[in-house]
Amino acid sequence: MNKFCIFLFLLFTLSGSLTGQPNMLMPVPQKMISGNGEFRFTAGFRIFVNQPTGSRAGAGVSRFIRRLDNKTHLLLAKEWLNKKPEQQNELLTISCNTVAKLLPGEDESYLLKITPEGCELTAPTDVGILYGLETFLQLIESDSKGYFIRSVTIEDAPRFTWRGLLIDVARHFSPVDVIKRNIDGLAMMKMNVLHLHLTEDQGFRIESKVFPKLHQYGSDGDFFTQEEMRNIIQYANVRGIRVVPEFDMPGHATSWFVGHPELASGPGPYTIEKKFGVFDPTIDPTRKETYVFLEKFLTEMCELFPDPWMHIGGDENNGKQWDANPKIQEFMKKNGLKDNHALQNYFNTKVMAILKKNKKKMIGWDEVLQPGLPADAVIQSWRGKEGLEAAVKKGHQVILSNGYYIDLSNPAWKHYTNDPLPANNTLTPEEQKNILGGEATMWAELVTPENIDSRIWPRTAAIAERLWSDREVNNIPSMYNRLARTSIRLEECGLEHITYRSKMIRRLAGNRNIESLITIAGLVEPLKDYKRHAQGVAYSTDLPFTRLPDIAAADAPVPLAFKDLCETWFRKKDPDVIPAIRAQLEEWQPLHGEVQVAASGIPALAPWLIVSERVSKLSKIGLESLHYVESRASVPDAWVKESYATLSEAALPVQECELMIAESVMMLFQNALPK
Amino acid sequence: MNKFCIFLFLLFTLSGSLTGQPNMLMPVPQKMISGNGEFRFTAGFRIFVNQPTGSRAGAGVSRFIRRLDNKTHLLLAKEWLNKKPEQQNELLTISCNTVAKLLPGEDESYLLKITPEGCELTAPTDVGILYGLETFLQLIESDSKGYFIRSVTIEDAPRFTWRGLLIDVARHFSPVDVIKRNIDGLAMMKMNVLHLHLTEDQGFRIESKVFPKLHQYGSDGDFFTQEEMRNIIQYANVRGIRVVPEFDMPGHATSWFVGHPELASGPGPYTIEKKFGVFDPTIDPTRKETYVFLEKFLTEMCELFPDPWMHIGGDENNGKQWDANPKIQEFMKKNGLKDNHALQNYFNTKVMAILKKNKKKMIGWDEVLQPGLPADAVIQSWRGKEGLEAAVKKGHQVILSNGYYIDLSNPAWKHYTNDPLPANNTLTPEEQKNILGGEATMWAELVTPENIDSRIWPRTAAIAERLWSDREVNNIPSMYNRLARTSIRLEECGLEHITYRSKMIRRLAGNRNIESLITIAGLVEPLKDYKRHAQGVAYSTDLPFTRLPDIAAADAPVPLAFKDLCETWFRKKDPDVIPAIRAQLEEWQPLHGEVQVAASGIPALAPWLIVSERVSKLSKIGLESLHYVESRASVPDAWVKESYATLSEAALPVQECELMIAESVMMLFQNALPK
Repeated sequence: MNKFCIFLFLLFTLSGSLTGQPNMLMPVPQKMISGNGEFRFTAGFRIFVNQPTGSRAGAGVSRFIRRLDNKTHLLLAKEWLNKKPEQQNELLTISCNTVAKLLPGEDESYLLKITPEGCELTAPTDVGILYGLETFLQLIESDSKGYFIRSVTIEDAPRFTWRGLLIDVARHFSPVDVIKRNIDGLAMMKMNVLHLHLTEDQGFRIESKVFPKLHQYGSDGDFFTQEEMRNIIQYANVRGIRVVPEFDMPGHATSWFVGHPELASGPGPYTIEKKFGVFDPTIDPTRKETYVFLEKFLTEMCELFPDPWMHIGGDENNGKQWDANPKIQEFMKKNGLKDNHALQNYFNTKVMAILKKNKKKMIGWDEVLQPGLPADAVIQSWRGKEGLEAAVKKGHQVILSNGYYIDLSNPAWKHYTNDPLPANNTLTPEEQKNILGGEATMWAELVTPENIDSRIWPRTAAIAERLWSDREVNNIPSMYNRLARTSIRLEECGLEHITYRSKMIRRLAGNRNIESLITIAGLVEPLKDYKRHAQGVAYSTDLPFTRLPDIAAADAPVPLAFKDLCETWFRKKDPDVIPAIRAQLEEWQPLHGEVQVAASGIPALAPWLIVSERVSKLSKIGLESLHYVESRASVPDAWVKESYATLSEAALPVQECELMIAESVMMLFQNALPK
Repeated sequence: MNKFCIFLFLLFTLSGSLTGQPNMLMPVPQKMISGNGEFRFTAGFRIFVNQPTGSRAGAGVSRFIRRLDNKTHLLLAKEWLNKKPEQQNELLTISCNTVAKLLPGEDESYLLKITPEGCELTAPTDVGILYGLETFLQLIESDSKGYFIRSVTIEDAPRFTWRGLLIDVARHFSPVDVIKRNIDGLAMMKMNVLHLHLTEDQGFRIESKVFPKLHQYGSDGDFFTQEEMRNIIQYANVRGIRVVPEFDMPGHATSWFVGHPELASGPGPYTIEKKFGVFDPTIDPTRKETYVFLEKFLTEMCELFPDPWMHIGGDENNGKQWDANPKIQEFMKKNGLKDNHALQNYFNTKVMAILKKNKKKMIGWDEVLQPGLPADAVIQSWRGKEGLEAAVKKGHQVILSNGYYIDLSNPAWKHYTNDPLPANNTLTPEEQKNILGGEATMWAELVTPENIDSRIWPRTAAIAERLWSDREVNNIPSMYNRLARTSIRLEECGLEHITYRSKMIRRLAGNRNIESLITIAGLVEPLKDYKRHAQGVAYSTDLPFTRLPDIAAADAPVPLAFKDLCETWFRKKDPDVIPAIRAQLEEWQPLHGEVQVAASGIPALAPWLIVSERVSKLSKIGLESLHYVESRASVPDAWVKESYATLSEAALPVQECELMIAESVMMLFQNALPK
């Protein structure tokens, strides 16, 4: 822990825990009125719930007491009361009237009142109770006398009804425990949908008892059994979360064909795809047998997954197998299907009919939106906002995922400012209702169970707030401040988004001192968007995902804080920040030497030296820049030239990462140049 | 990371990775002959296996390549060859003849030859291949040119055939993922038995389809389904590990009676026990219906668990329910059963007959050893070595667990020096054969899935070596040196024995700077043996297991290294170590102030302040002691008196922990006293 980190920690601590409630809550509630005094916890704290033992609310309260006690060590009674006691101080009274069906549009509101005399949580449905309990936990503060909550009344309800996370368990599999801890994370952030992308070119991840070759041949052994899936669904359900399954078709379906080549539009045999991208294998939509198969399979899945929605994918069908198959061409001609879009629409309509028979609504990606698609199909928009509004105007309900691609290592503020229904939208009030909400998407080309949490969290909490809180709740520094606190709170679920890093570094460095390596990993971020794929590494599931870009993560906090300092100096000319800038640069300058020691004789760490060398060089330039400014000495041309070259190089990708301090040092450098 | 830690790291690094192979292996192999030159890895490294795809050896090789590549980033081909290539350099040739049945006494040996031209691994059975691969991974070194293994020939085989870990999943449940990562840990350490303690007063943790009330009423919902258990057994089997189930009876059986009170010897109703200790509820051994029930239940379990051994517990029956039940008393009289031991033996004999019918051998704890017990019952010894030898002399096979109670927070060296068959044993060679081996026992009164790994690892690796390596392999510093390296290597399985600590501290401290708290947690150890239960805390499953003693762990390395320094000074009068002692004390002295900042206003951290105050006071005394010795100034009586009082207090338990530096500072103090 270096001095600069301590400074950051103090900063967060001061700005966070001491200034009261509004800074503590994420997502920000709709309405919050402060009162006088505070409710203080003692070991006598009890909870009354008007719901039966074993109910969703009751189970939620049991988990809540554990979490509260694990944090406060008050040694609270672990059983809640189902009869209201005479003495009602030290009491949290919980009541709701209805067990939620977990359907979009349900009332998810809650009302939480904290007074010195006691606490009350009421909600029309039990999911409101779960949300209220999360708010309650976030409100707890402490001082030397004990734990307390300031008096407050909170009326809260989500802005959007569909607040989801997609996990792609197909490209890289995530086993049950990873899914469960992420469900807990979703529940903490008041999200309510887990969308499982179950099938892909790279894997078929759900057991089919009707067609066992699907998972047996299509998965390399990594799949959810039906019992496991029922277990996951139940686990999610008691936490107020729906599980929406996706079976991507007709494209992205190579893994189906390993066991069932007869479903494909081209000749087999097929093997599980290891590379990533858009591949040719596509379901043959012209054969009757295809629909016999799909009806059997989807009916099985409709029984397994109780949610009334089912996602059929529909994205990125390149049509090559269709173009190359004379029988398919003939079929199209015969049926007046003028192009592949029309053929896919033909396919979708047939699939939708199967789902309807099973009382399911269909969801598809943008591409399923074709003339003739029934209006009750839901469109999930991944390609852009235009598609979203276009679908809404055609009468479809929509879910936004464009802008929420958390796998692409963009900073949280980008997702946070991506409003599904921005102020400047062109929709009528009626049309606006069709925007159900959004889903963060965790595509799994470049993640494993070891680092997936670090891609999902904490940034998904910013998306959770976007989907829950008011449009006007959009202060980015406030969001980052609360996100830092939320990140630590999320570890309670067993999430590994903080601890994964030192563990992964130790794999490479063994028992060396890894402090300098941790610093390096915190100064870079994985290249954003799809740039990692353009660095000469041919990614496939065969690659080791244990290298620097897998260990680094988006929103690196140290460079961000440093950038703030540099901007403050550059823009506001505030010289008070110079000592902090200098202290940081002086700490970074010897880093290359330290990394050389840590990495010596370890070839897997050689790439880290390229980064550390850049860091040390940049630090030197930064310090020299400060010197020229402060001493008003003349700036030698040779220094300018050499520094500029170094800075330009440092701005380039390095080891599939971006060095996040390059821009800041460039600001210092520019400040030193003669005006 | 303080300077002293860096010193330690360097120490380990230098003594470990640079001095060659013998220091790297754990457990130490039986025979190892160094050769000339070294085998160097390139991306062209390939493996040939003479076993079919999907075989245990083949699957082991696939996991092996992943691990190798995750560490070296050589981008190796992930598929191994099943046809021997023409070119045989850069090749690891693997061959075995037999698929192991996973039975005690099977040949587990392997032969590993590394030469510059290539590597060969041969073994009579495929488990030998798995062991050889673990050795291979441990042999890998690196330098600036790449990764390599020095030429060597290793002939290896275990000393004992039964090398196990018991996990008590009953008192606190451990879900599937915890079990799986620990299975991987066992496999890395060449252990071969996972003993699951499935039933207890506090929980019945396995689904019974025949008597579903057992798990439904007896588990609070935390149990393994049969599918999960089959999955665990399969996972263990492919890693060469047997799963031995234990159903503890007739005592420790409260949870059975919640759903089936008719099985008990006293009147119900019963509830799941939350406290820990020895409880009265005991199966009624006198009713015929008891054996009808047990036959049905055990037959179901015998089918579920393929291992030929089944453990029936048999420990700690206090006999109170039997004494109090007139019908049982009458039965004893009628059948000439003179005491409760005789009655339990009657019960055991009946149960053993049921197991025999199912072709299972019976294992029981010490207490089952009573006159008349058939000699083919296996005795697991928990009470002492005397019981072990007594059982052997009566012709029983035995497994040692006494001395391997890893839940009691004793240092690794204690377990390491606990030889199941010490040199001074009084057994004949024939009798010695009946000592099958040993099992580390992870009893779960005081652990949760969050910290259980930190109790099992790395100390179980020391036990693994005791059970695998020769009796003469008993150098404690060497063991600790290799244990430190092994500990980091074990993180590869996803084990959380290193990362749990900062995570648990952040739960209490939120986004404060936790560096000083991490230091504190590293200076204490949980009280050893059963002392935690005598500190006034009434432990039960209702308590939060998130306090200082749950965050601390055995074998704290920093105090241990400090003690070495102080002993060196005290015993050998070596003044060269004084600067290191002083540096450490100067670092600790301000700790109390730092912890005050970190813990201010956080009541759950108040207990930590008691510890930090002691640390700072001791550091002051230590520094003053150094001063008096070095300056030869006269030592004031008042200082002696006050310091002695402080030291005496510091030696007492604090917050169910032991402050591990107290003894070392006492040495410094004594050195300063006038002779």
